[in-house]
Amino acid sequence: MKNFRYHNYTEIIFGKDSENEVGIHIKKYASKILLHYGGGSIKKSGLYDRVKSALEKENIEVIELGGVKPNPRLSLVKEGIKLCKEHNIDFILAVGGGSVIDSSKAIAIGANYDGDVWDFFMGKKIEHEPLKLGVILTIPAAGSESSVSCVITNEETLIKKGVNSPLIRPMFAIMNPELTFTLPKYQTACGIVDMFCHILERYFTNELHVDVTDGLCEGLMKAIIKNAERILKEPNNYEIRAEIMLAGLIAHNGSLDLGRVGDWASHNMEHELSAIYDIAHGAGLAITTPAWAKYVYKHNIPRFVRFANQVFNVEVNPFNLEETALKGIEELEKFFRSLDLPTRLSEVSEIKADDELFKLMAQKIVETYGTIGRFVTLEFDDIVSIYRLAK
Amino acid sequence: MKNFRYHNYTEIIFGKDSENEVGIHIKKYASKILLHYGGGSIKKSGLYDRVKSALEKENIEVIELGGVKPNPRLSLVKEGIKLCKEHNIDFILAVGGGSVIDSSKAIAIGANYDGDVWDFFMGKKIEHEPLKLGVILTIPAAGSESSVSCVITNEETLIKKGVNSPLIRPMFAIMNPELTFTLPKYQTACGIVDMFCHILERYFTNELHVDVTDGLCEGLMKAIIKNAERILKEPNNYEIRAEIMLAGLIAHNGSLDLGRVGDWASHNMEHELSAIYDIAHGAGLAITTPAWAKYVYKHNIPRFVRFANQVFNVEVNPFNLEETALKGIEELEKFFRSLDLPTRLSEVSEIKADDELFKLMAQKIVETYGTIGRFVTLEFDDIVSIYRLAK
Repeated sequence: MKNFRYHNYTEIIFGKDSENEVGIHIKKYASKILLHYGGGSIKKSGLYDRVKSALEKENIEVIELGGVKPNPRLSLVKEGIKLCKEHNIDFILAVGGGSVIDSSKAIAIGANYDGDVWDFFMGKKIEHEPLKLGVILTIPAAGSESSVSCVITNEETLIKKGVNSPLIRPMFAIMNPELTFTLPKYQTACGIVDMFCHILERYFTNELHVDVTDGLCEGLMKAIIKNAERILKEPNNYEIRAEIMLAGLIAHNGSLDLGRVGDWASHNMEHELSAIYDIAHGAGLAITTPAWAKYVYKHNIPRFVRFANQVFNVEVNPFNLEETALKGIEELEKFFRSLDLPTRLSEVSEIKADDELFKLMAQKIVETYGTIGRFVTLEFDDIVSIYRLAK
Repeated sequence: MKNFRYHNYTEIIFGKDSENEVGIHIKKYASKILLHYGGGSIKKSGLYDRVKSALEKENIEVIELGGVKPNPRLSLVKEGIKLCKEHNIDFILAVGGGSVIDSSKAIAIGANYDGDVWDFFMGKKIEHEPLKLGVILTIPAAGSESSVSCVITNEETLIKKGVNSPLIRPMFAIMNPELTFTLPKYQTACGIVDMFCHILERYFTNELHVDVTDGLCEGLMKAIIKNAERILKEPNNYEIRAEIMLAGLIAHNGSLDLGRVGDWASHNMEHELSAIYDIAHGAGLAITTPAWAKYVYKHNIPRFVRFANQVFNVEVNPFNLEETALKGIEELEKFFRSLDLPTRLSEVSEIKADDELFKLMAQKIVETYGTIGRFVTLEFDDIVSIYRLAK
């Protein structure tokens, strides 16, 4: 087990009607905020009005910036930074899913910095204090509500990159499962894949002695599978929505990381895909992750056997562990398909899945990162091979 | 799933040599502290000297109070409060296990309060801000290093009672598994039972839809069982000590509670025992918990079946679920015995295990709490019956 430091100070306020208290929670930090959100869905659902009235009740002055899209764009981040500077804002309220929260985090970083916020996405270390932020979560998926991560797309260069810093955890996350009842089936499914892959990326590690976090990862993956089976049929079932919302939080709040180093190559490979094609992150992961597993499983067959057995109840064949490992990967792909998501590039009509694309994406990855993957190190040829397996 | 709020701000600093940074962590909060510890073990091991020199390096002024005993006493807490008031101290460093940390928490509560600190243990709500505290953990067991709990024994009345408040979480917990190498076998075993029971108390809940936390609880219990098997034979194995230390933290940091209500009757029944006989809390739990399970299992046989199957790999007999449930309880008792701990009152020579004692303890419980247990409500006769089953 590796040495680690863990400091997750995000306050979680979970349950029915919790968004109505948002003003009270913000009041501890600020009396003037940037309210950041996406498109019309929070207006249609009435959430926007409830939030505004909760803020008014506490006399909180609000500057607004809507328009966040999936795979959030640098240009909007810059607009937000400008607004914060103009209006002397020092708190951001993100109302939405991972894209809105990530966009808010990027604004929080840039608003207290004189240079170009993209510097930090290109590797500069954050050493100043970003603005504080809070979240009302509407899409359980990215776990950004209490994570240290933030991913932004630079739409000029089509580079999608992340920043990880303990300085960008939100101060609070309000999580009302009822707010997710109206999520379309496709978005619900993408969210489930995203959180499942957050666990899976951590699960495949080269650390040898990580029983505690292995156990937590397996327990959480099983809980997700069980509830995913029902959620598409019962979208208004509070209990199931609550399980998935809580799972998304824990999957990415850092507690499953303790003492281990995850892989994250599937995430890197997906980011290339969604930087170019603007598909949902979860949908992309449903494609890159099984392909990645098929390519790397020989690196540690016992770990893939444990995954197959503990997560998907595949019986262990002690005479042929490789067979068991492969059955687990098959179950993983089946799980994603059971959510009505494509698991191959060729199934997504807008993607021209050929070697030209694969090489272009692999090239961008090695230019940005050198190699990717910490469970198995992947170079240009490996990455191309995995995209081919995903075809 | 119940609505909940969760705010665990304790920073965890985990790994080799981490105690040498203690001065740097304290410096953020104070330049004068109360150093609180137990007996001679930290002096013998050299930890005391290392801590002192780390504090000196940061010019932190130190007032000392040693002498904390297992089942920490109110009288020493009062001494600590007096010291803090006299010396204008506003930070406490606890170096030790759960008893030292709980004693520190009680001092922290009392030092900023004009009345008698015992008021809070008798039910008064904490509404003032206690002193801040930090921890160097030497015994993985109680989970007090990042919990909201604190249990103190009033040695005049032989009443042992707890306070739970989100205001008493330590600011940081330094956890170096190497510091636990010298723990005697008995204390190691008691610690394992304590953390296991922290999970078990939460696991037995009447909430129907808690798959996520069920999965986390089961994963963690399995990890503890796996490592407990080896720890007594390999006390100097860093990896095993690290697993147990991390398990103790997570078992009681509140993350396994999210959205559910635990039982805690076995804990209440153990507190009576250790208030009178001064036995280790974990040893007491190894006795009260299996007896409790034998008495209440009929309340929810499927939950006990799930426990047997998921935690102890007992095969489910669908024709006789009760048999499966009972096998799980048998495995639980066997697990505690495998740690060389007695699981019956009559095995502990200093205890006179008869109805007179059982009724005395039950009487004290109902006088203090009315009823106990939230999975199954227990009254006087139930409590006596459970003590009889523990005979």
